[in-house]
Amino acid sequence: MAIQMREHKKDSVSEMIEWLARFGRTANGGVTRLLFSKEWREAQDALKDKMESLQLQTYFDSAGNLFGKLLGTEPGGKTILTGSHIDTVLDGGKYDGAYGIIASLLATTRLFQKYGFPKKTIEVISLSEEEGSRFPLTFWGSRNISGAYNLENVKDLEDDDGIPFLEAMKESGFEPKEYQPSIRTDIERFVEIHIEQGMILEKNQNTIGVVSHIVGQRRYTINVVGESNHAGTTPMLYRKDAVSTTSKLITYLTEKAKEFDPQLVATVGKLNVMPNVSNVVAGEVEFSLDIRHHQEDVLNRYCEDIFTEFERLSTDLEVRISQWMDVKPIAMDEEMNQMIRQIATEKDISYQDMVSGAGHDAQVFASICPTTLIFVPSQNGISHSPKEFTRIEDLETGVKLLTEALYKLAY
Amino acid sequence: MAIQMREHKKDSVSEMIEWLARFGRTANGGVTRLLFSKEWREAQDALKDKMESLQLQTYFDSAGNLFGKLLGTEPGGKTILTGSHIDTVLDGGKYDGAYGIIASLLATTRLFQKYGFPKKTIEVISLSEEEGSRFPLTFWGSRNISGAYNLENVKDLEDDDGIPFLEAMKESGFEPKEYQPSIRTDIERFVEIHIEQGMILEKNQNTIGVVSHIVGQRRYTINVVGESNHAGTTPMLYRKDAVSTTSKLITYLTEKAKEFDPQLVATVGKLNVMPNVSNVVAGEVEFSLDIRHHQEDVLNRYCEDIFTEFERLSTDLEVRISQWMDVKPIAMDEEMNQMIRQIATEKDISYQDMVSGAGHDAQVFASICPTTLIFVPSQNGISHSPKEFTRIEDLETGVKLLTEALYKLAY
Repeated sequence: MAIQMREHKKDSVSEMIEWLARFGRTANGGVTRLLFSKEWREAQDALKDKMESLQLQTYFDSAGNLFGKLLGTEPGGKTILTGSHIDTVLDGGKYDGAYGIIASLLATTRLFQKYGFPKKTIEVISLSEEEGSRFPLTFWGSRNISGAYNLENVKDLEDDDGIPFLEAMKESGFEPKEYQPSIRTDIERFVEIHIEQGMILEKNQNTIGVVSHIVGQRRYTINVVGESNHAGTTPMLYRKDAVSTTSKLITYLTEKAKEFDPQLVATVGKLNVMPNVSNVVAGEVEFSLDIRHHQEDVLNRYCEDIFTEFERLSTDLEVRISQWMDVKPIAMDEEMNQMIRQIATEKDISYQDMVSGAGHDAQVFASICPTTLIFVPSQNGISHSPKEFTRIEDLETGVKLLTEALYKLAY
Repeated sequence: MAIQMREHKKDSVSEMIEWLARFGRTANGGVTRLLFSKEWREAQDALKDKMESLQLQTYFDSAGNLFGKLLGTEPGGKTILTGSHIDTVLDGGKYDGAYGIIASLLATTRLFQKYGFPKKTIEVISLSEEEGSRFPLTFWGSRNISGAYNLENVKDLEDDDGIPFLEAMKESGFEPKEYQPSIRTDIERFVEIHIEQGMILEKNQNTIGVVSHIVGQRRYTINVVGESNHAGTTPMLYRKDAVSTTSKLITYLTEKAKEFDPQLVATVGKLNVMPNVSNVVAGEVEFSLDIRHHQEDVLNRYCEDIFTEFERLSTDLEVRISQWMDVKPIAMDEEMNQMIRQIATEKDISYQDMVSGAGHDAQVFASICPTTLIFVPSQNGISHSPKEFTRIEDLETGVKLLTEALYKLAY
């Protein structure tokens, strides 16, 4: 054990990132680690071994979440939970999720090596699933802990190869028949550190983002139905052109988003034209609309504005609006955020408050305990890609900040 | 022969349409008759038999064009040519092309039965190819006659199944090794009657369209290249969103086309987004642009206007404009058009001058001889579809008008 300890002392954050990225590495340097896959299981098992070699007590819950526990000395104390998710998107990056687990593990280990056992129990968590990349649901890991999900929510789900969720779960060693609810009521606080996946910190030359809110998300599928016609023989005024009407709607919603609120984003990322032939006036367009902001009121007012205008702009074409996602905005704990800002100031780390435009496990934990979410920069804002990159210095600054935060919370 | 004559006297235009539509009929009532296909050859052979039974002299040229000749009595006279194309698009209608052949055949037969041989030779032509539906070229039939095309133009072409043009030609009985140029220098005039394929006659309640011009066509592929980003974490002002920029370009070009000239049409019918994912800001859009007008000057000014504006609207995104079609506008013969108007007036047929927004064989013949193009209405403007329909009364009015025109030109 003493020898192992010496070996592990040498682990730097960048070495740990590379080590974990070996599980599921893709041909072009990315990582694919889908829930309950072989690579996913290997990564969790390797992390378990690593945690044990660092003298943490380990266990899995029924949802596939891995815990590494450093017992607190105070009797009956609650747990300070810290970590992130182990799963990735298809051909994703090395940092998304993984960094949060590694930073939590390093911070906890450093505290233990320096100060011994904490007053309050610290648990490092490697959450089983957040991305929704294999099965059509997200936050399987954290939502089992919060109690929002259990086997009922997945019994009919299949992946793209037709493999049922429950079969994949069993195959991976988590027997559904032995499933026990993973609900936790003993978590006092949750701390997550994650890459920003945007370019705000980089543009502002800040190393740390203190997340005040995670945005609400509304997603829609919109169909504009006109009339398909001959591109040569149909005068402009006789047309019911789905492409040109759609263009007006997109131009309006984009310009309106820019002026409505600096933190509102509205995206049309997917667009399909029918019949999609160069010399035929399009009869129908279907497009996606993704709207995000951290205030429900702003989302309400923006949506009301654009959907009213859609009616006006579409004249004699039909516009069908169908909503398929409505995630409410959620605030992080201001007291914890104030602690993070204070640590950053003390340690001369540049930071800023910001809103998270992406979803994170922290939003699930925020519903059951005070939670904070900390960002480190993403080069060029690139994420979900093998090109995802964060400088070693920034990764290490994040670990230092997290170490200090856990010290304040648990020692 | 007398018995045959009696039989054929009974042929009405609608019976002939149904008869010809049997060759290549599709499951849902459309017609597929691609160049050099079995159905195409059967249709040409059946037409040849029909022409012979009506006492026309028949022959094919090397390009697969079928002629039915009614010899003129004047020595050394030139030919009055009339007809249209026998090929169709995939699952097209019964009238496009076919009506022009049938109307020409009926008109010539009626004249012969009533007045005997004409002074000038009349030839009814069933042109081999106009649509470009099997091989990537159009007007194979008429452009062999004008001299614009010969075997050189098709030696490298293949259809979607990889069958070379020359092999299909040979298979259909037109041996490339025996190819003789089909150029004709003895055509005095060309008269084509065709369905409008638009809704202008129907909207104006007119039965005949006298085509003043066939539009010029310019076609472009336009690429808008921006930057793919996360839809949640990229503020609106940091985006290089290819979809929203494309929407501005399409909105501009469409609105500008409406106000620029009532007969200008500009169509974006095809549009592909990359990566086309709902929660990713699009990095690139490729779209088609089809612009038509009968005056080169209008096309020039409009294109200059929109492409200048494209630069301004695209700001820091790249816009690549690539032209792949430039067909010049062409005028029909005003003297012949005046004759058509006069006949319509005499016979109390409602008519109007109009521009053809679609291409027709008449535009090829207009480069070698005075040419006129006459339209009959298309119900709801629908064409290139099994739903293509023209009322029997309108078909018959067209035949009567054409009969009178050929009488004036050849008798």
